[in-house]
Formats: sequence, structure tokens, C-alpha cells
Amino acid sequence: MRGIRGLVTETSHLDPEDGIEFRDFTIPQIRKLLPKTPGGGEPLPEGLFWLLLTGEVPTLEQVKSVSKTWAERAGLPSHVVTMLNNFPSHLHPMSQFSAAITACNTESKFAKAYSEGVPKATYWEHTFEDALDLIAKLPTIAATIYRNLYKDGSSIGAIDVNKDWSANFTSMLGYDDPNFTELIRLYLTIHSDHEGGNVSAHSVHLVGSALSDPYLSFAAGMNGLAGPLHGLANQEVLVWLRKLQKDLGPDASEEEVKEFVWKTLKSGQVVPGYGHAVLRRTDPRYIVQRDFALKHLPDDPMFKLVSQLYKIVPQILLELGKVKNPWPNVDAHSGVLLQYYGMTEMQFYTVLFGVSRALGTASSLVWDRALGLPIERPKSMTTEGLMKLVGAI
Amino acid sequence: MRGIRGLVTETSHLDPEDGIEFRDFTIPQIRKLLPKTPGGGEPLPEGLFWLLLTGEVPTLEQVKSVSKTWAERAGLPSHVVTMLNNFPSHLHPMSQFSAAITACNTESKFAKAYSEGVPKATYWEHTFEDALDLIAKLPTIAATIYRNLYKDGSSIGAIDVNKDWSANFTSMLGYDDPNFTELIRLYLTIHSDHEGGNVSAHSVHLVGSALSDPYLSFAAGMNGLAGPLHGLANQEVLVWLRKLQKDLGPDASEEEVKEFVWKTLKSGQVVPGYGHAVLRRTDPRYIVQRDFALKHLPDDPMFKLVSQLYKIVPQILLELGKVKNPWPNVDAHSGVLLQYYGMTEMQFYTVLFGVSRALGTASSLVWDRALGLPIERPKSMTTEGLMKLVGAI
Repeated sequence: MRGIRGLVTETSHLDPEDGIEFRDFTIPQIRKLLPKTPGGGEPLPEGLFWLLLTGEVPTLEQVKSVSKTWAERAGLPSHVVTMLNNFPSHLHPMSQFSAAITACNTESKFAKAYSEGVPKATYWEHTFEDALDLIAKLPTIAATIYRNLYKDGSSIGAIDVNKDWSANFTSMLGYDDPNFTELIRLYLTIHSDHEGGNVSAHSVHLVGSALSDPYLSFAAGMNGLAGPLHGLANQEVLVWLRKLQKDLGPDASEEEVKEFVWKTLKSGQVVPGYGHAVLRRTDPRYIVQRDFALKHLPDDPMFKLVSQLYKIVPQILLELGKVKNPWPNVDAHSGVLLQYYGMTEMQFYTVLFGVSRALGTASSLVWDRALGLPIERPKSMTTEGLMKLVGAI
Repeated sequence: MRGIRGLVTETSHLDPEDGIEFRDFTIPQIRKLLPKTPGGGEPLPEGLFWLLLTGEVPTLEQVKSVSKTWAERAGLPSHVVTMLNNFPSHLHPMSQFSAAITACNTESKFAKAYSEGVPKATYWEHTFEDALDLIAKLPTIAATIYRNLYKDGSSIGAIDVNKDWSANFTSMLGYDDPNFTELIRLYLTIHSDHEGGNVSAHSVHLVGSALSDPYLSFAAGMNGLAGPLHGLANQEVLVWLRKLQKDLGPDASEEEVKEFVWKTLKSGQVVPGYGHAVLRRTDPRYIVQRDFALKHLPDDPMFKLVSQLYKIVPQILLELGKVKNPWPNVDAHSGVLLQYYGMTEMQFYTVLFGVSRALGTASSLVWDRALGLPIERPKSMTTEGLMKLVGAI
């Protein structure tokens, strides 16, 4: 499938040079243009959702109306709360997240409307309602999982309808540093969408193309995001960084770090967080996270290490000569920021990624229904069939 | 994606004339060649799994070894039993099925091996072990859901390691007619695989391509199968047949049935169970089910109606002139057989379909890993981008 043009996705477009463009706006542009909280420096992800869905940059008032709607709809059905609280601690947070989303489909307005035989032209409206409900509930699910697994299982507390989506989320997670909330606003904005062909977005579209409701469709996407090749990279970066730090001590010289990188490469491994299938420059999602770090945690030893690597690794990869893109991507930075604020539970990082990914995939699903896109049905071939096709047998 | 050759699937190939071919064997061939229970007329699905996986028709002894393995591995982790027993009755059986499969990934041998860093060349072995475990557990999950939703929630009873997969399944469901077990053997055999491009098989492959474990991959496929455009057709057939029966009474004349069919078509609906995107003849999966009915329930009024429609509908659809295939498909028959034996709970039919679909999709996943197939990553385009591409703007 690599490179095959087979999907229509309106919400975003990946430019090899400029990185992801949300409705034609680059990451630096959306960071500048999207509404922020008074005194805050990072865009509100509610605004990005508005942009992805409508193509227009919203006003602060419009964004506030989204925050309010999501806060009002954030409650979970009691059977989902029961389910989450009964899960054993060895069930991976992503599995808990996905199973809970699937079970939330008791709430699907699309499924109800479909079973009542509503006209096809209205499918998008019910999908839109489900998209709002789904996005509203994801932080509640995620925070419940986080508290059950890593804290004392205490209550996530009440939702405040006057707070934005991220502020409610960090409060439910049990964090009170406003800068962590700023980080989460940025994080949830930049992980939201990356065209339609990545495994999570594609799974949501594919399952949704059979007219499965948005809960089932999104849960399928989360099962894809849970794959090590997709959503695990941020975790692998942090594991590698910690190993480097442990092996070399706190004040490693440039030479020592270079040697460690070469050792990684010579053992047949990749440097996690570097390179990308499409991008040909430093991922702008890396750059905004670096900006955030320079502003909020310039002296953090782990950030200093990440900065040091940014100077060293691309040179080495270019020297190696085999890579098309020697630059860091989004995953090279996110874990370092989260751990700075105390979120060190790496297994949970993909859940955060998943909460964000709902903004893009749910917006796309609304458009799939509005445009009446057909069921996705490519043709498969056996190896034998392929060989016959090319005249090899 | 329609018609785009973008997937390699070894297990089966869809021929427009002969229908599905499992490793080059047609439905009539596999029905003849695959091992059966002593005195039984229908193939054991264990044998089909062997064929899909290896390309070879197994002996009865080999099939028995599969039955034994699956019976030994049929138990569920206790947290999944708790989860199923706590689900509310308004949670759709397919959502229960999918969520339970996702939660079973605590048992994944692939996920464990991957996290321990095993060599890539051994991925298929751990995937194979998971495939066996997963298939073994599906009837237990399905029967638990069935008893909780439609019976008194009583225990599914013990697995008998000397019984075949289907016999244990029908016993857990609470049925004791040996002919129903024969039907389930046939049902689970013929619904197993249909190339790689249908939504359920494709979702399993897509999610699996990110190296998600077989539980997460298969659960994603089930969320696709739950879509009304995919797995709901058998249910829609039965609803339509019942309406016909109710409107026309028990002994409707050919003219009356014709009129009902025309009325359906003229109201803008399709005749459910007729036509297929690829097939250009009567689906052989329809024909074997018809054979089964002729042998076991020739006088059932609903079967007689299905037979009457088989004579009438294709003529009318040809007369209409717009359809490429006026012949019945697999879904036109399965519900009628199940309800004859007392399984009238239509919402459950897709779960049966799902149990069967594991045979093909799990076999394919083993091959995906053995062949080292890459992450699936097609290219998406915006409508604007497409228009530019073709020079329209």
C-alpha cells in the first residue's frame, strides 16, 4: 500500500518539507492563530477540532462553546465505570482504553438513528453528535485508567464546565501545575491528525466505512495505535534516553554521546525518534515541543540531553548515508516533557496520544458520512496470483 | 480503494464465477475433501483452519489434534469472565464480543515475546500460538454472551477435550440437537475467509501491520464486522423474510411474492441477500446451505419461502436490468437455518460470523508475520489535492 493513493481525507495533508498541515495551516501557523486561554501560550485543542472539522479558525468564544459542550458530555455510562474499576492491573492501559470505548457504544446516537432508518443524508449529523460525545468522554476514561493503575484509584473528581478540555483532563489525572496543563494543550493539539493513511486514522476510516458507529470505529483505531510500530515510539525514545543517561552519567561529553549513538546503530538498531517515512526535515511537532522546553524547562538534564542529540544524531545519520531523513520527529521529544512534570508512566503515553488522535479521526469520520464515501474494499492477491500477474510463472 | 490491488493475502482468493477459493479449493471441494466426524456430513472447521494455514488438506487425525488443542486452551482469564458477566443487557453482543477479545490480550504470547525483544524471524511463531489461543477462546466468549443475554445466565458448562470445536460450542450455547452442531460446523467453515479486502479481514491485517498482537488486531476486525454494511446482512434478510411472511400469510402464491419483491424494489430498497460486489453467479456458500436445508429441513415454511425467492428474485433483478449479479449470496440463507433450530436471536448472528472469521484472519496474520509484510501505509489526499492532481483546479 505504500504510496498508493487510495484515501480521501480532508482534515490534514502531510507535506514532506513543511510537515503536517491542518486544513492548509502549518504547526507554527496554528500555534499562532488558534485561540489560547487568557495568559496561556499554547493553543486550545478545541480550536484545532473546530479547524479540522470546518476548515475555519474559530474565535475564542466559539472555542469556549466547544469546551463547555465537552465538559457537559464528559460523564461515562455506569457500566463502563464498573468495567474500568474491575480491570486487573496487568491489563495494558491501551487495552483498557479501547475496550472501554467499545463498551461506550451503548451511547451511540448514530447507531440508534441508523436502526431507526433515518435518511442517508442525515448520517453525518448523528456521527457529529457521537464525535462530540466520544471526544468529551475520552479524558474521563483515560484519567480513570491512570488513577486505577498508577495512583490509589481515588475518584477523578468532578468536571468543571467552566474549564477547558485539557484543564479538566489534568485535574482528573491529579496534576495541578498550570504549566503541565499548557503542555497537555500543546500535546493534544499536535498529535491530533497526520493525514488518513497512518494505521490509527486508516483503521477508524476503514471500520467506519462499514457504517460502524464512531465508538467502534475509534476503538479499532486505538487497537492500531497500540501497535509497537505506531504508538510506542515515544516510549522507546525515553527508554533509550534513560539507558544513555545511565551508561554515561549526568554530564556526558559530545564524544561520549556520539560513541553511544554509533554503538546503537552498529548493533543493528535505529535511533528512536529520528527519521520519518514522509517528512524530509525536522518535524515541526518536534520544534514546538523544543520551544516549549526552552521556555519552561531549559535546565532539565533530560532536555539538555535531547538538545545535545539534536546536534549530534543528524550528522551521524547523514554520515551513515542510508537514511532519507536524519531529523527528529514528534516522538523524540514528547516523553521528556511529560516526565519533567512527573508523568513517568511510559505505558500510559500512548493513551494520551489516543485522546488527541480522536480530534482528527472523528472529524474525518463526520466528513466520510457527509460525503457519502463508500465502503473501503481494495483487492487482495495471493503471492501466486501476483507472480502470474507479472508473468513470473 | 475499490479494485486497487494493495494487499497480499495467501489464504483465499475470490473468483467471480466459482466464488471463494480457500487455497485454490472451492466450497464444493472443501466440503468433499475436509475430514468430518464419524457419521457427520459437514466438514470440521478445524480442517479448514489447517488448510488455510498450511495449504494442505489435513487427515482426520491431524484435525483431531487441532480440536484437542483448542479444547485445552478454551478457558478465559477470570477478569474477562467478570467483565462479561457485568455487562448490561443493552450492550450489543458484538460490542461485548470485541471488548472481551481486546481484554484477553493479557494472554498474548506475541506481545510478551515482542517486549522481550525476540528476533523478527520468530514473530510468526508467537503469532501462531496466539492464533490458536484466540480461536480456542472465541466460542467460550460467544457462549457466555449468549447465555447472559438470552438465557438465564447459567454456566456454559465444562469443555470436553474429546469433542470437536463446534460440538463444544453448541453445548456451551445450550443446544443438544446434533444436527444443529452439524449446521454450526458448516457455518463456521464457510464464513471463515473471503480474501483480504473485506472490512473485517482488512482491519485485522491493518492493525496487525503495526505489530499489535492478534487479540487487538482481531478485535478491530470485529468492530468492522459489526458495521451494518458488513455483518448485518444476514439479520436484514431474516427481518425482510418475516415481513413478507407476515404480510402474505403462510401459503403465498408466486404472483403475490413477485409483487412483494417489486414493491420492495420500487420503494428504493434492495432485496437483502441478493447481489455481490465481486461474484457473478449464485454464491456457492448459498448452495451448500441450500443442500443442508434440503437434507435436514425440506418442509420448513421459511426454507420453502427462501426456495421460492431463489426462483423469483433473479428473474426480476435481470428484468430490472441494473444489477451485475442477480443471484443470492451467503447471507440469503444462513438466518433461516439458525432459526429453524431455535436460534432466533438475530443480534447474535454476527457474533457467530465473527467466530468463523477468526479462522481466516488469524491464519493470514501468521503469514503476514512470517513473510515480514510491512506496515500498511497508503497515501491519502484531500479533495482539493485530488482536483489539482487531475488538473481540475
